[in-house]
Amino acid sequence: MPHIAVDAMSGDFGPSMVVLAIRDLVKDHPDVIFRVVGDADALRQELSRARLQNSTQVIVHHASQVVAMDETPSQALRGKRDSSMHIAIGLLREGHADAVVSAGNTGALMALGKVFLRTIPGIDRPAIAAFLPTTTGRFLALDMGANVDCHPEHLFQFAVMGSILAEQVMGVTKPRVGLLNIGSEEIKGNEQVKEAALLLRASHLNFIGNVEGSDIYRGVADVVVCDGFVGNVALKTSEGLAAMIRRELRASYTHGWYGRIAYLVNRPILQRLRRRLDSRQYNGATLLGLNGIVIKSHGNADRFAFACALEVAITEAKHRLTLHIAEVIQERLDPAVRSSA
Amino acid sequence: MPHIAVDAMSGDFGPSMVVLAIRDLVKDHPDVIFRVVGDADALRQELSRARLQNSTQVIVHHASQVVAMDETPSQALRGKRDSSMHIAIGLLREGHADAVVSAGNTGALMALGKVFLRTIPGIDRPAIAAFLPTTTGRFLALDMGANVDCHPEHLFQFAVMGSILAEQVMGVTKPRVGLLNIGSEEIKGNEQVKEAALLLRASHLNFIGNVEGSDIYRGVADVVVCDGFVGNVALKTSEGLAAMIRRELRASYTHGWYGRIAYLVNRPILQRLRRRLDSRQYNGATLLGLNGIVIKSHGNADRFAFACALEVAITEAKHRLTLHIAEVIQERLDPAVRSSA
Repeated sequence: MPHIAVDAMSGDFGPSMVVLAIRDLVKDHPDVIFRVVGDADALRQELSRARLQNSTQVIVHHASQVVAMDETPSQALRGKRDSSMHIAIGLLREGHADAVVSAGNTGALMALGKVFLRTIPGIDRPAIAAFLPTTTGRFLALDMGANVDCHPEHLFQFAVMGSILAEQVMGVTKPRVGLLNIGSEEIKGNEQVKEAALLLRASHLNFIGNVEGSDIYRGVADVVVCDGFVGNVALKTSEGLAAMIRRELRASYTHGWYGRIAYLVNRPILQRLRRRLDSRQYNGATLLGLNGIVIKSHGNADRFAFACALEVAITEAKHRLTLHIAEVIQERLDPAVRSSA
Repeated sequence: MPHIAVDAMSGDFGPSMVVLAIRDLVKDHPDVIFRVVGDADALRQELSRARLQNSTQVIVHHASQVVAMDETPSQALRGKRDSSMHIAIGLLREGHADAVVSAGNTGALMALGKVFLRTIPGIDRPAIAAFLPTTTGRFLALDMGANVDCHPEHLFQFAVMGSILAEQVMGVTKPRVGLLNIGSEEIKGNEQVKEAALLLRASHLNFIGNVEGSDIYRGVADVVVCDGFVGNVALKTSEGLAAMIRRELRASYTHGWYGRIAYLVNRPILQRLRRRLDSRQYNGATLLGLNGIVIKSHGNADRFAFACALEVAITEAKHRLTLHIAEVIQERLDPAVRSSA
């Protein structure tokens, strides 16, 4: 019976959105308890409005503060001890919850996680692991921005953890692990990536070698590993180009009467395309490597997107992801390799 | 009267494509001489076909070999001394040409450039500088993949050269230079980027600070600087996502009879979009920092794209780009900074 601690106050849309997202899930997940954290009065009001005030699946935890989007991690750690984010992490730490979901400030969430949950023994740096679309489904990419200047050993750890997540949560057998690089040839890449490849090749993982940015959306790998700086820049750049394509597409349509007619004719097609490429369905990045399941939702998530993030948390909690990773790390990580990190 | 040495044999489409691209330009550029390098017989045949056999603007140089796309730079250097690429670089080196354009193997072209032209005094590493689209025009991005593991000093040099190119060739006054980073705040980034920012801030350049991947296509900067590994991965990842969007869009249209009708109605719109985002118009990356103008065209460039690359070469040659960079480097680069590279 998984308990999910939900930070209802962080993010752009606040408690009303969060409560509606929970309402969308309670029927399909009758065995899940949602511990909603935030301003108790506001929450009870929203729960009433959503007819969840008597639900046995919802428990309210009061928090008097909220971590702001522009706060530094240290400000959040020291000054906001009664924030919804802080309390939610505390619930996980004390065993009252099996996972935390928050749409708040990523830096603060990661900092709170590192301080209060610490990392899984054997893991040096938790990574942000996000789902991205492929033509036929999805793949997992990490690190999407938690760590810059990674050592090869860190990339190796990302691969191990990502592989377990893909197996357990995405249901993939022997997930194909690729290293994001500038070419497929072994000779290509910077020092960090070349050395990481050696570690990966010597491991038990289903390492398929280097993968290029142009191939990852075709689904050549189930898990794509990279340094946090590289991953974040690549992701943001892709999003920037996609946004430009959307802007240009929209601009083409408003060009005169023909454009407007064409738009009407084209609308169902565009809607299907929008659904297919809808980033909201991929919402819910895992702070992978913390000693507890922590899911980060986009700040601007609406109820559909936030529900997707909640479902990631539920799935990972049911599969006891953290425990599985801890077991594999214990078994597999060569003590000699670990001590060199 | 600029002379452009054109490698007619490298790339996917060979001499017929190259000759047609030249034909498209001879009228608009009556003062330009095209020194076409490749198999003399094949070239003369194509020139006849294109009615250029008597043109005073075309000179044929014979080359008996071609550098293959999968050859390593060292193979190209040692084994292919009579390749069209090699001969073209030689023409530039000996002063018979003011620029080289090739659609061949980038690694080989860069290697030949470094060995036979060397770098502009004061420049350690030449970068691949490419034009990318913005909503209103274009910007210059470098390094797009020539150098991995750059030092902060290298990023600074890229910025200096890129700024001159933008001024001279794009006609931008005081080009805005941005450093590709994971956030706009100064505190963000890896060691390399943080130190590069210090150098840039202390310089004469119009440095606007960090720029994120999601903003560059909006035209926030005229010149975007990054490490070659990061730039290449970001570019390829964006291209991969754009390709996926195109695939999904196409797939949406073949979905039944409505899709086909919608496609016909939508075709002019899509064509306008395709033209607007047409990557061919941006073809022609500069190997910036070599002591001579060397332009790299995409291997799969058609005649329109290759003509765009030729025009980049013509513009840079007319503006004596290499000379300008050499002058600025002499004046501006602090000897103390240079010796620490």
